[in-house]
Amino acid sequence: MSLLTVGSVAFDAIETPFGKTDKIIGGAGTYIALASSFYNIEQNIISVVGEDFPQEMLNQLKSRDVNLDGLQIIKGEKTFFWSGKYHNAMNSRDTLVTELNVLEHFDPIIPANYQGVDYLMLGNLSPQVQRQVIERLDVRPKLVAMDTMNFWMDIALEDLKLTISMVDLLIINDEEARQLSGEYSLVKASKVIRAMGPKFLIIKKGEHGALLFYNDNIFNAPALPLEDVFDPTGAGDTFAGGFMGYIASTNDISFDNMKRAIINGSALASFCVEKFGTERLTTITKNDLNERILQFVTLTNFDMKHSAA
Amino acid sequence: MSLLTVGSVAFDAIETPFGKTDKIIGGAGTYIALASSFYNIEQNIISVVGEDFPQEMLNQLKSRDVNLDGLQIIKGEKTFFWSGKYHNAMNSRDTLVTELNVLEHFDPIIPANYQGVDYLMLGNLSPQVQRQVIERLDVRPKLVAMDTMNFWMDIALEDLKLTISMVDLLIINDEEARQLSGEYSLVKASKVIRAMGPKFLIIKKGEHGALLFYNDNIFNAPALPLEDVFDPTGAGDTFAGGFMGYIASTNDISFDNMKRAIINGSALASFCVEKFGTERLTTITKNDLNERILQFVTLTNFDMKHSAA
Repeated sequence: MSLLTVGSVAFDAIETPFGKTDKIIGGAGTYIALASSFYNIEQNIISVVGEDFPQEMLNQLKSRDVNLDGLQIIKGEKTFFWSGKYHNAMNSRDTLVTELNVLEHFDPIIPANYQGVDYLMLGNLSPQVQRQVIERLDVRPKLVAMDTMNFWMDIALEDLKLTISMVDLLIINDEEARQLSGEYSLVKASKVIRAMGPKFLIIKKGEHGALLFYNDNIFNAPALPLEDVFDPTGAGDTFAGGFMGYIASTNDISFDNMKRAIINGSALASFCVEKFGTERLTTITKNDLNERILQFVTLTNFDMKHSAA
Repeated sequence: MSLLTVGSVAFDAIETPFGKTDKIIGGAGTYIALASSFYNIEQNIISVVGEDFPQEMLNQLKSRDVNLDGLQIIKGEKTFFWSGKYHNAMNSRDTLVTELNVLEHFDPIIPANYQGVDYLMLGNLSPQVQRQVIERLDVRPKLVAMDTMNFWMDIALEDLKLTISMVDLLIINDEEARQLSGEYSLVKASKVIRAMGPKFLIIKKGEHGALLFYNDNIFNAPALPLEDVFDPTGAGDTFAGGFMGYIASTNDISFDNMKRAIINGSALASFCVEKFGTERLTTITKNDLNERILQFVTLTNFDMKHSAA
């Protein structure tokens, strides 16, 4: 099966209590593509970079069978750049620099060979760009998933709601779910948000795992308890990439299969935070991933039947 | 099997965004005893009240087969009183009033018929009182569990550490674990705390569930996602009571059985928060509890095996 990922390919500069990076490769599209490349699927990306973007990183994505036909390289312009600093607890960060650059006038052109794609993952971008991609696809994918962030709720809420109304699955964090719904209780928030359109909702809770909502069903996935979170950048995108990669590879959007997809996404995200940026994701193997998935099984598994001693 | 609970039996006055109570019955010992009364065990309580405490509440505990031989009624004195106000998000509260009254000079006398008890649950009290109970038991119980709170870390840390060194299982919340250990990461905190003595550690995370640590094993239990948390008072004590009631009724302190005990405690706690004070706990049946436990199974259950469509 095929997956189309739309998302930024960018430069990040990150500071955490553990250290500091120069400009490194980041962006939602990069993390989603890296994570979904662990699955046996046909991968396509739509994105944009400037001519300052290193060819070796594009080669790395190509070597993982990511189709870059939809990645535009804009002459004379610079790649999107974000810089941020995490605080001690790693659950809050300050944005130091945001240079939109090529993202400012991004027109997501869809190559002809991308038409008929089976699954669509819309990484965090302007709701208008996300919507254009949905509208420009000739055939509706089997599952359209999107990520977004509080920034768009602040400056383009109506636009965002329009795009949300067009997707099957929304993946956001708890703070965003509360802001979008106006409800503190995540159960109430999930009802308000699903009334906006998406049948499925995933609320990510960072170190506390994730919740999947569908009709009256709720699934609670844990995060792996870690000694240290070295750098949380990209963990949410990695989660989404692992989720959609697994869904596309199994071609099954049942609630039960989404549970497995969430565990896959959570396992990949737990690797992502162990090093700066994409470093850890580019060094682990499929075996590493499978072993970590077993850790999730051990972590949550219980059997209520007690056999008397 | 028999369980000895040591903990306050008290008056509370509670204010939440949903309303406000007059003086109602509360106290760690009350919640623990009510929760553990759902299990087929011999229950004994050590506590103290003033002569202002209503006989009908003592009768209610008796009707649930709680042995009150160790409950002292101090003539001419008043029962412990706590009053608190919860904020919108329910995860923080202000203490408005604390009147120690009979707790100030509490001497936990152990009735002769309590000796030889199988399991011991030390509810939140001064570490000195908790220690006295352990020291006054002729035979070491099969499992000694204790709760405590940040208050004792602030004013009696060395005393607290001495008591902690004498127990098998410590049950505290995430904030307390961080304060006690000086570590933000709960995995690191769990190592520091277990080096103080307890082989087992449960860290409660409120709406995010609980973690059980033992050697290199971690179990993650979810909390039930609820539309509303009406009043969180007593939820932690109810959790501990359900946990120890289940452990005592099954007489099994294996890691696997502790997982089941945590699910039992979590299910009871999820009822507790649905009404003010002990109200909900006194109206549910064992059937209600079993149905809720099934909800926890559904909430966390997944099977990584995918059968291709």
